[in-house]
Amino acid sequence: METKGKLYLIPTRLGDNPPLEVLPLSIKKVIEQLDHYIVENEKTARRFIKRVVPSKSQPNLKLKVLNKFTQATELGTFLEPCVNGNSMGIISEAGCPAIADPGADIVRLAHERNIKVIPLVGPSSIILALMSSGMNGQSFAFNGYLPIDKQERKQKIKQLEKRSFELNQSQIFIETPYRNNQMLKDLISTLHQNTRICVACDLTLPTEYIKTLSAKDWKHNTSEDLHKRPAIFIIQKD
Amino acid sequence: METKGKLYLIPTRLGDNPPLEVLPLSIKKVIEQLDHYIVENEKTARRFIKRVVPSKSQPNLKLKVLNKFTQATELGTFLEPCVNGNSMGIISEAGCPAIADPGADIVRLAHERNIKVIPLVGPSSIILALMSSGMNGQSFAFNGYLPIDKQERKQKIKQLEKRSFELNQSQIFIETPYRNNQMLKDLISTLHQNTRICVACDLTLPTEYIKTLSAKDWKHNTSEDLHKRPAIFIIQKD
Repeated sequence: METKGKLYLIPTRLGDNPPLEVLPLSIKKVIEQLDHYIVENEKTARRFIKRVVPSKSQPNLKLKVLNKFTQATELGTFLEPCVNGNSMGIISEAGCPAIADPGADIVRLAHERNIKVIPLVGPSSIILALMSSGMNGQSFAFNGYLPIDKQERKQKIKQLEKRSFELNQSQIFIETPYRNNQMLKDLISTLHQNTRICVACDLTLPTEYIKTLSAKDWKHNTSEDLHKRPAIFIIQKD
Repeated sequence: METKGKLYLIPTRLGDNPPLEVLPLSIKKVIEQLDHYIVENEKTARRFIKRVVPSKSQPNLKLKVLNKFTQATELGTFLEPCVNGNSMGIISEAGCPAIADPGADIVRLAHERNIKVIPLVGPSSIILALMSSGMNGQSFAFNGYLPIDKQERKQKIKQLEKRSFELNQSQIFIETPYRNNQMLKDLISTLHQNTRICVACDLTLPTEYIKTLSAKDWKHNTSEDLHKRPAIFIIQKD
Protein backbone atom coordinates (compact mmCIF):
# COMPACT_ATOMS: atom_id res chain seq x y z
CA MET A 1 0.00 0.00 0.00
CA GLU A 2 1.48 3.33 -1.08
CA THR A 3 0.16 6.22 0.95
CA LYS A 4 3.16 8.58 0.73
CA GLY A 5 3.30 11.30 -1.92
CA LYS A 6 5.97 11.24 -4.60
CA LEU A 7 8.75 13.72 -5.20
CA TYR A 8 8.87 14.96 -8.81
CA LEU A 9 12.04 16.61 -10.13
CA ILE A 10 10.81 19.24 -12.59
CA PRO A 11 13.30 20.83 -15.01
CA THR A 12 12.59 24.36 -16.22
CA ARG A 13 13.48 26.40 -19.30
CA LEU A 14 16.93 27.97 -19.74
CA GLY A 15 15.35 31.23 -20.90
CA ASP A 16 12.06 32.64 -22.08
CA ASN A 17 11.06 30.02 -24.69
CA PRO A 18 7.48 28.85 -25.15
CA PRO A 19 7.49 26.05 -22.51
CA LEU A 20 6.48 23.09 -24.69
CA GLU A 21 9.20 23.92 -27.25
CA VAL A 22 11.78 22.71 -24.75
CA LEU A 23 9.78 20.72 -22.20
CA PRO A 24 7.78 17.52 -22.74
CA LEU A 25 4.06 17.17 -21.97
CA SER A 26 4.74 15.13 -18.84
CA ILE A 27 5.91 18.32 -17.10
CA LYS A 28 2.62 20.08 -17.89
CA LYS A 29 0.65 17.08 -16.64
CA VAL A 30 2.56 16.87 -13.38
CA ILE A 31 2.23 20.61 -12.69
CA GLU A 32 -1.52 20.35 -13.35
CA GLN A 33 -1.69 17.84 -10.49
CA LEU A 34 0.66 19.34 -7.90
CA ASP A 35 0.12 22.13 -5.38
CA HIS A 36 3.17 21.52 -3.17
CA TYR A 37 6.59 22.65 -4.36
CA ILE A 38 10.14 23.13 -3.15
CA VAL A 39 11.62 25.96 -5.23
CA GLU A 40 14.88 27.87 -5.55
CA ASN A 41 13.12 31.21 -6.11
CA GLU A 42 9.46 31.79 -5.34
CA LYS A 43 8.81 34.51 -7.93
CA THR A 44 10.43 32.66 -10.85
CA ALA A 45 8.75 29.40 -9.88
CA ARG A 46 5.28 31.00 -9.74
CA ARG A 47 5.85 32.64 -13.11
CA PHE A 48 7.00 29.32 -14.59
CA ILE A 49 4.00 27.40 -13.22
CA LYS A 50 1.66 30.11 -14.57
CA ARG A 51 3.32 29.94 -17.97
CA VAL A 52 3.02 26.14 -18.20
CA VAL A 53 -0.49 25.85 -16.70
CA PRO A 54 -2.16 29.30 -16.86
CA SER A 55 -5.38 28.00 -15.26
CA LYS A 56 -3.60 26.90 -12.06
CA SER A 57 -4.73 28.70 -8.88
CA GLN A 58 -1.71 30.62 -7.60
CA PRO A 59 -3.10 31.23 -4.06
CA ASN A 60 -3.46 27.46 -3.61
CA LEU A 61 0.22 26.81 -4.29
CA LYS A 62 2.30 25.91 -1.25
CA LEU A 63 5.93 26.82 -1.90
CA LYS A 64 8.97 26.23 0.29
CA VAL A 65 12.16 28.04 -0.68
CA LEU A 66 15.39 26.06 -0.95
CA ASN A 67 18.52 28.09 -1.64
CA LYS A 68 21.99 28.67 -0.23
CA PHE A 69 20.47 30.44 2.79
CA THR A 70 18.30 27.46 3.74
CA GLN A 71 19.54 25.88 6.99
CA ALA A 72 20.26 22.15 6.96
CA THR A 73 18.07 21.86 10.06
CA GLU A 74 15.03 23.20 8.15
CA LEU A 75 15.26 20.56 5.43
CA GLY A 76 13.75 17.89 7.65
CA THR A 77 10.32 19.52 7.48
CA PHE A 78 10.33 20.18 3.73
CA LEU A 79 9.05 16.74 2.79
CA GLU A 80 6.16 16.71 5.28
CA PRO A 81 3.53 17.03 2.54
CA CYS A 82 4.93 13.83 0.94
CA VAL A 83 4.83 12.02 4.26
CA ASN A 84 1.18 13.11 4.57
CA GLY A 85 0.30 11.72 1.15
CA ASN A 86 0.71 14.81 -1.07
CA SER A 87 3.08 14.65 -4.01
CA MET A 88 5.56 17.50 -4.39
CA GLY A 89 7.72 19.03 -7.10
CA ILE A 90 11.23 20.50 -6.94
CA ILE A 91 11.84 23.42 -9.31
CA SER A 92 15.19 25.19 -9.62
CA GLU A 93 16.04 28.51 -11.28
CA ALA A 94 16.93 27.03 -14.65
CA GLY A 95 17.42 23.54 -16.01
CA CYS A 96 17.47 20.38 -13.89
CA PRO A 97 17.04 20.49 -10.11
CA ALA A 98 19.94 18.98 -8.13
CA ILE A 99 22.40 19.37 -11.02
CA ALA A 100 24.63 22.44 -10.60
CA ASP A 101 21.62 23.68 -8.59
CA PRO A 102 20.06 22.99 -5.18
CA GLY A 103 17.95 19.89 -4.60
CA ALA A 104 20.29 16.98 -3.94
CA ASP A 105 19.93 17.23 -0.13
CA ILE A 106 16.16 16.99 -0.42
CA VAL A 107 16.39 14.03 -2.80
CA ARG A 108 18.77 12.34 -0.39
CA LEU A 109 16.26 12.80 2.45
CA ALA A 110 13.50 11.43 0.21
CA HIS A 111 15.49 8.21 -0.34
CA GLU A 112 16.13 7.92 3.40
CA ARG A 113 12.40 8.24 4.06
CA ASN A 114 11.44 5.82 1.30
CA ILE A 115 9.65 8.52 -0.72
CA LYS A 116 9.52 7.69 -4.42
CA VAL A 117 11.61 10.08 -6.55
CA ILE A 118 10.49 10.67 -10.16
CA PRO A 119 12.77 12.66 -12.51
CA LEU A 120 11.17 14.40 -15.50
CA VAL A 121 12.90 15.11 -18.81
CA GLY A 122 14.04 18.66 -19.55
CA PRO A 123 16.97 20.84 -20.53
CA SER A 124 20.37 20.34 -18.92
CA SER A 125 22.82 22.93 -20.21
CA ILE A 126 25.68 20.57 -19.30
CA ILE A 127 24.38 17.76 -21.52
CA LEU A 128 23.33 20.11 -24.35
CA ALA A 129 26.82 21.62 -24.36
CA LEU A 130 28.60 18.27 -24.22
CA MET A 131 26.48 16.78 -27.06
CA SER A 132 27.34 19.70 -29.29
CA SER A 133 31.01 20.04 -28.32
CA GLY A 134 32.32 17.11 -30.37
CA MET A 135 34.35 16.09 -27.32
CA ASN A 136 34.36 12.78 -25.49
CA GLY A 137 30.82 11.86 -24.42
CA GLN A 138 31.87 8.38 -23.23
CA SER A 139 33.86 9.81 -20.35
CA PHE A 140 33.42 13.29 -18.90
CA ALA A 141 33.43 15.26 -15.66
CA PHE A 142 31.51 18.31 -14.52
CA ASN A 143 33.56 20.48 -12.15
CA GLY A 144 31.27 23.38 -11.24
CA TYR A 145 33.01 26.75 -10.83
CA LEU A 146 36.79 27.25 -11.00
CA PRO A 147 38.63 29.29 -8.33
CA ILE A 148 38.43 33.11 -8.69
CA ASP A 149 42.03 33.85 -7.62
CA LYS A 150 44.12 34.23 -10.77
CA GLN A 151 46.93 31.89 -9.76
CA GLU A 152 44.67 29.20 -8.33
CA ARG A 153 42.52 29.41 -11.40
CA LYS A 154 45.47 28.93 -13.75
CA GLN A 155 46.55 25.93 -11.68
CA LYS A 156 43.08 24.42 -11.81
CA ILE A 157 42.88 24.90 -15.59
CA LYS A 158 46.24 23.14 -15.95
CA GLN A 159 45.06 20.34 -13.68
CA LEU A 160 41.83 19.83 -15.65
CA GLU A 161 43.77 19.82 -18.93
CA LYS A 162 46.08 17.15 -17.54
CA ARG A 163 43.13 15.10 -16.36
CA SER A 164 41.39 15.42 -19.75
CA PHE A 165 44.49 13.94 -21.36
CA GLU A 166 45.40 11.26 -18.80
CA LEU A 167 41.87 9.95 -18.24
CA ASN A 168 40.66 10.80 -21.77
CA GLN A 169 37.84 12.59 -19.95
CA SER A 170 36.36 15.83 -21.26
CA GLN A 171 36.26 18.49 -18.54
CA ILE A 172 33.18 20.68 -18.16
CA PHE A 173 32.89 23.78 -15.98
CA ILE A 174 30.97 27.02 -15.58
CA GLU A 175 31.68 30.65 -14.77
CA THR A 176 29.70 33.55 -13.37
CA PRO A 177 28.35 35.07 -16.62
CA TYR A 178 30.00 38.48 -16.18
CA ARG A 179 33.42 36.80 -16.10
CA ASN A 180 32.96 34.70 -19.27
CA ASN A 181 35.18 36.79 -21.55
CA GLN A 182 37.97 36.73 -18.97
CA MET A 183 37.56 32.95 -18.59
CA LEU A 184 37.98 32.39 -22.31
CA LYS A 185 41.10 34.60 -22.28
CA ASP A 186 42.53 32.65 -19.34
CA LEU A 187 41.85 29.35 -21.12
CA ILE A 188 43.49 30.53 -24.33
CA SER A 189 46.60 31.77 -22.51
CA THR A 190 46.92 28.81 -20.13
CA LEU A 191 46.12 25.73 -22.24
CA HIS A 192 48.34 23.93 -24.73
CA GLN A 193 47.73 25.41 -28.17
CA ASN A 194 46.16 22.21 -29.55
CA THR A 195 43.79 21.64 -26.61
CA ARG A 196 40.22 22.04 -27.80
CA ILE A 197 37.94 24.52 -26.05
CA CYS A 198 34.15 24.51 -26.46
CA VAL A 199 32.10 27.55 -25.50
CA ALA A 200 28.33 26.99 -25.40
CA CYS A 201 26.24 30.07 -24.63
CA ASP A 202 22.52 30.86 -24.42
CA LEU A 203 21.61 27.22 -25.05
CA THR A 204 18.10 26.62 -26.52
CA LEU A 205 17.66 30.39 -27.05
CA PRO A 206 17.52 32.36 -30.32
CA THR A 207 20.97 33.81 -29.49
CA GLU A 208 22.52 30.34 -28.97
CA TYR A 209 26.25 30.26 -29.72
CA ILE A 210 28.28 27.02 -29.73
CA LYS A 211 31.85 26.78 -30.95
CA THR A 212 34.72 24.33 -30.52
CA LEU A 213 38.20 25.38 -31.60
CA SER A 214 41.76 24.70 -30.49
CA ALA A 215 43.26 27.23 -28.06
CA LYS A 216 45.43 28.42 -30.96
CA ASP A 217 42.43 29.01 -33.25
CA TRP A 218 40.40 30.76 -30.53
CA LYS A 219 43.08 33.51 -30.53
CA HIS A 220 41.79 34.67 -33.90
CA ASN A 221 38.11 34.16 -32.98
CA THR A 222 37.42 36.41 -30.03
CA SER A 223 34.79 38.54 -31.77
CA GLU A 224 31.81 36.94 -29.96
CA ASP A 225 30.93 38.83 -26.78
CA LEU A 226 30.14 36.30 -24.04
CA HIS A 227 29.47 38.94 -21.37
CA LYS A 228 26.54 38.06 -19.07
CA ARG A 229 25.39 35.17 -21.27
CA PRO A 230 24.96 31.85 -19.40
CA ALA A 231 27.78 29.65 -20.69
CA ILE A 232 29.29 26.20 -20.36
CA PHE A 233 33.01 25.63 -21.02
CA ILE A 234 34.50 22.26 -22.01
CA ILE A 235 38.13 21.40 -22.63
CA GLN A 236 39.89 18.32 -23.94
CA LYS A 237 43.51 17.62 -24.76
CA ASP A 238 43.85 14.78 -27.28
CA MET B 1 25.36 34.68 -45.90
CA GLU B 2 24.59 31.23 -44.51
CA THR B 3 24.26 28.62 -47.23
CA LYS B 4 25.39 25.53 -45.32
CA GLY B 5 22.85 23.24 -43.68
CA LYS B 6 22.76 22.82 -39.91
CA LEU B 7 23.44 19.71 -37.88
CA TYR B 8 20.65 18.97 -35.38
CA LEU B 9 21.32 16.62 -32.47
CA ILE B 10 18.02 14.82 -31.89
CA PRO B 11 17.51 12.86 -28.65
CA THR B 12 15.13 9.89 -28.72
CA ARG B 13 12.98 8.09 -26.16
CA LEU B 14 14.48 5.62 -23.67
CA GLY B 15 11.64 3.17 -24.35
CA ASP B 16 8.24 2.98 -25.96
CA ASN B 17 6.58 6.08 -24.45
CA PRO B 18 4.27 8.35 -26.44
CA PRO B 19 6.95 10.64 -27.96
CA LEU B 20 5.68 14.01 -26.72
CA GLU B 21 5.44 12.72 -23.14
CA VAL B 22 9.24 12.78 -22.97
CA LEU B 23 10.27 14.95 -25.94
CA PRO B 24 9.55 18.64 -26.53
CA LEU B 25 7.74 20.00 -29.59
CA SER B 26 10.97 21.33 -31.11
CA ILE B 27 11.97 17.74 -31.94
CA LYS B 28 8.74 17.17 -33.86
CA LYS B 29 9.20 20.45 -35.75
CA VAL B 30 12.78 19.65 -36.73
CA ILE B 31 11.89 16.13 -37.91
CA GLU B 32 9.06 17.60 -40.00
CA GLN B 33 11.68 19.66 -41.83
CA LEU B 34 14.56 17.20 -42.24
CA ASP B 35 15.08 14.41 -44.78
CA HIS B 36 18.81 13.78 -44.16
CA TYR B 37 19.88 11.82 -41.10
CA ILE B 38 22.89 10.14 -39.57
CA VAL B 39 21.57 7.28 -37.43
CA GLU B 40 22.93 4.54 -35.21
CA ASN B 41 20.37 1.97 -36.44
CA GLU B 42 18.30 2.45 -39.58
CA LYS B 43 15.27 0.39 -38.53
CA THR B 44 14.89 2.02 -35.10
CA ALA B 45 15.45 5.50 -36.52
CA ARG B 46 12.78 5.03 -39.22
CA ARG B 47 10.33 3.73 -36.63
CA PHE B 48 11.09 6.70 -34.37
CA ILE B 49 10.64 9.25 -37.17
CA LYS B 50 7.36 7.57 -38.16
CA ARG B 51 6.15 7.66 -34.57
CA VAL B 52 6.94 11.37 -34.14
CA VAL B 53 5.75 12.53 -37.59
CA PRO B 54 3.50 9.80 -39.07
CA SER B 55 2.86 11.80 -42.27
CA LYS B 56 6.57 11.89 -43.18
CA SER B 57 7.47 10.12 -46.46
CA GLN B 58 9.76 7.22 -45.55
CA PRO B 59 11.12 6.62 -49.09
CA ASN B 60 12.33 10.24 -49.19
CA LEU B 61 14.48 9.82 -46.08
CA LYS B 62 18.21 9.65 -46.68
CA LEU B 63 19.87 7.78 -43.83
CA LYS B 64 23.54 7.14 -43.22
CA VAL B 65 24.43 4.58 -40.56
CA LEU B 66 26.98 5.50 -37.89
CA ASN B 67 27.93 2.73 -35.47
CA LYS B 68 31.02 0.97 -34.17
CA PHE B 69 31.56 -0.64 -37.59
CA THR B 70 31.71 2.72 -39.40
CA GLN B 71 35.24 3.42 -40.67
CA ALA B 72 36.84 6.71 -39.68
CA THR B 73 37.62 7.28 -43.37
CA GLU B 74 33.90 7.19 -44.27
CA LEU B 75 32.97 9.94 -41.84
CA GLY B 76 34.30 12.66 -44.11
CA THR B 77 31.44 12.17 -46.56
CA PHE B 78 28.66 12.00 -43.97
CA LEU B 79 28.23 15.76 -43.76
CA GLU B 80 28.05 16.37 -47.53
CA PRO B 81 24.32 17.20 -47.43
CA CYS B 82 25.14 19.99 -44.92
CA VAL B 83 27.90 21.32 -47.11
CA ASN B 84 25.39 21.35 -49.99
CA GLY B 85 22.86 23.37 -48.00
CA ASN B 86 20.67 20.61 -46.50
CA SER B 87 20.25 20.41 -42.76
CA MET B 88 20.76 17.01 -41.14
CA GLY B 89 19.83 15.27 -37.91
CA ILE B 90 21.80 12.78 -35.79
CA ILE B 91 19.68 10.14 -34.05
CA SER B 92 21.15 7.48 -31.75
CA GLU B 93 19.56 4.29 -30.41
CA ALA B 94 18.27 5.86 -27.20
CA GLY B 95 18.71 9.19 -25.44
CA CYS B 96 21.17 11.89 -26.51
CA PRO B 97 23.46 11.44 -29.51
CA ALA B 98 27.19 11.74 -28.75
CA ILE B 99 26.69 10.97 -25.03
CA ALA B 100 27.51 7.34 -24.18
CA ASP B 101 26.54 6.82 -27.83
CA PRO B 102 28.07 7.53 -31.26
CA GLY B 103 28.03 11.00 -32.74
CA ALA B 104 30.92 12.97 -31.23
CA ASP B 105 33.22 12.36 -34.23
CA ILE B 106 30.62 13.79 -36.60
CA VAL B 107 30.01 16.79 -34.37
CA ARG B 108 33.76 17.37 -34.23
CA LEU B 109 33.93 17.36 -38.04
CA ALA B 110 30.98 19.75 -38.18
CA HIS B 111 32.90 22.27 -36.02
CA GLU B 112 35.99 21.88 -38.20
CA ARG B 113 33.88 22.63 -41.29
CA ASN B 114 32.08 25.52 -39.67
CA ILE B 115 28.70 23.79 -39.80
CA LYS B 116 26.32 25.07 -37.14
CA VAL B 117 25.49 22.47 -34.49
CA ILE B 118 22.09 22.69 -32.76
CA PRO B 119 21.35 20.42 -29.76
CA LEU B 120 17.72 19.63 -28.95
CA VAL B 121 16.37 18.87 -25.49
CA GLY B 122 15.53 15.26 -24.64
CA PRO B 123 16.11 12.44 -22.18
CA SER B 124 19.62 11.68 -20.92
CA SER B 125 19.54 8.64 -18.64
CA ILE B 126 22.78 9.89 -17.02
CA ILE B 127 21.23 13.21 -15.98
CA LEU B 128 17.89 11.67 -14.98
CA ALA B 129 19.72 9.18 -12.76
CA LEU B 130 22.00 11.80 -11.21
CA MET B 131 19.11 14.21 -10.45
CA SER B 132 17.24 11.46 -8.64
CA SER B 133 20.21 9.91 -6.84
CA GLY B 134 20.55 12.54 -4.11
CA MET B 135 24.31 12.50 -4.75
CA ASN B 136 26.58 15.40 -5.62
CA GLY B 137 25.26 17.19 -8.72
CA GLN B 138 27.84 20.02 -8.40
CA SER B 139 30.71 17.70 -9.27
CA PHE B 140 30.34 14.37 -11.05
CA ALA B 141 31.99 12.09 -13.60
CA PHE B 142 30.58 9.66 -16.11
CA ASN B 143 32.92 6.69 -16.66
CA GLY B 144 31.15 4.53 -19.28
CA TYR B 145 31.57 0.76 -18.79
CA LEU B 146 33.77 -0.83 -16.13
CA PRO B 147 36.20 -3.65 -17.02
CA ILE B 148 34.68 -7.15 -17.37
CA ASP B 149 37.56 -9.06 -15.76
CA LYS B 150 36.64 -9.69 -12.12
CA GLN B 151 39.89 -8.44 -10.59
CA GLU B 152 40.21 -5.40 -12.84
CA ARG B 153 36.61 -4.55 -12.16
CA LYS B 154 37.07 -4.70 -8.40
CA GLN B 155 40.12 -2.46 -8.73
CA LYS B 156 38.20 0.02 -10.85
CA ILE B 157 35.32 0.11 -8.36
CA LYS B 158 37.82 0.80 -5.55
CA GLN B 159 39.45 3.52 -7.63
CA LEU B 160 36.13 5.23 -8.39
CA GLU B 161 35.14 5.07 -4.73
CA LYS B 162 38.43 6.71 -3.77
CA ARG B 163 37.93 9.41 -6.40
CA SER B 164 34.34 10.05 -5.23
CA PHE B 165 35.71 10.72 -1.75
CA GLU B 166 38.90 12.64 -2.61
CA LEU B 167 37.36 14.87 -5.27
CA ASN B 168 33.87 14.87 -3.70
CA GLN B 169 32.73 13.82 -7.16
CA SER B 170 29.87 11.37 -7.66
CA GLN B 171 30.88 8.55 -10.00
CA ILE B 172 28.46 7.37 -12.67
CA PHE B 173 28.84 4.25 -14.81
CA ILE B 174 26.86 1.73 -16.85
CA GLU B 175 26.80 -2.01 -17.40
CA THR B 176 25.58 -4.34 -20.14
CA PRO B 177 21.98 -4.95 -18.95
CA TYR B 178 22.32 -8.72 -18.57
CA ARG B 179 25.14 -8.19 -16.05
CA ASN B 180 23.30 -5.68 -13.82
CA ASN B 181 22.55 -8.04 -10.93
CA GLN B 182 26.18 -9.14 -10.84
CA MET B 183 27.31 -5.50 -10.92
CA LEU B 184 25.20 -4.64 -7.90
CA LYS B 185 26.59 -7.68 -6.04
CA ASP B 186 30.15 -6.62 -6.91
CA LEU B 187 29.48 -3.08 -5.70
CA ILE B 188 27.98 -4.29 -2.41
CA SER B 189 30.89 -6.63 -1.74
CA THR B 190 33.65 -4.22 -2.83
CA LEU B 191 32.61 -0.81 -1.48
CA HIS B 192 32.90 0.54 2.04
CA GLN B 193 29.69 -0.26 3.91
CA ASN B 194 28.67 3.42 4.19
CA THR B 195 29.32 4.31 0.56
CA ARG B 196 26.03 5.16 -1.14
CA ILE B 197 24.96 3.28 -4.27
CA CYS B 198 22.22 4.50 -6.58
CA VAL B 199 20.60 2.14 -9.06
CA ALA B 200 18.36 3.81 -11.65
CA CYS B 201 16.58 1.43 -14.04
CA ASP B 202 14.04 1.79 -16.87
CA LEU B 203 14.11 5.58 -16.57
CA THR B 204 10.98 7.40 -17.86
CA LEU B 205 9.18 4.03 -18.27
CA PRO B 206 6.24 2.63 -16.28
CA THR B 207 8.64 0.10 -14.69
CA GLU B 208 11.07 2.84 -13.54
CA TYR B 209 13.03 1.88 -10.42
CA ILE B 210 15.35 4.31 -8.61
CA LYS B 211 16.91 3.63 -5.23
CA THR B 212 19.84 5.01 -3.27
CA LEU B 213 21.06 3.10 -0.23
CA SER B 214 24.37 2.53 1.52
CA ALA B 215 26.27 -0.63 0.49
CA LYS B 216 25.34 -2.02 3.92
CA ASP B 217 21.61 -1.40 3.40
CA TRP B 218 21.63 -2.78 -0.15
CA LYS B 219 22.55 -6.17 1.34
CA HIS B 220 19.00 -6.47 2.71
CA ASN B 221 17.39 -5.03 -0.42
CA THR B 222 18.28 -7.30 -3.30
CA SER B 223 14.70 -8.28 -4.12
CA GLU B 224 14.49 -6.09 -7.26
CA ASP B 225 15.52 -8.01 -10.38
CA LEU B 226 17.67 -5.73 -12.56
CA HIS B 227 18.27 -8.34 -15.27
CA LYS B 228 18.20 -6.90 -18.82
CA ARG B 229 16.79 -3.54 -17.66
CA PRO B 230 18.82 -0.52 -18.88
CA ALA B 231 20.44 0.86 -15.74
CA ILE B 232 22.71 3.61 -14.48
CA PHE B 233 24.86 3.11 -11.37
CA ILE B 234 26.19 5.95 -9.22
CA ILE B 235 28.41 5.74 -6.17
CA GLN B 236 29.60 8.29 -3.63
CA LYS B 237 31.62 7.95 -0.47
CA ASP B 238 30.97 10.83 1.93
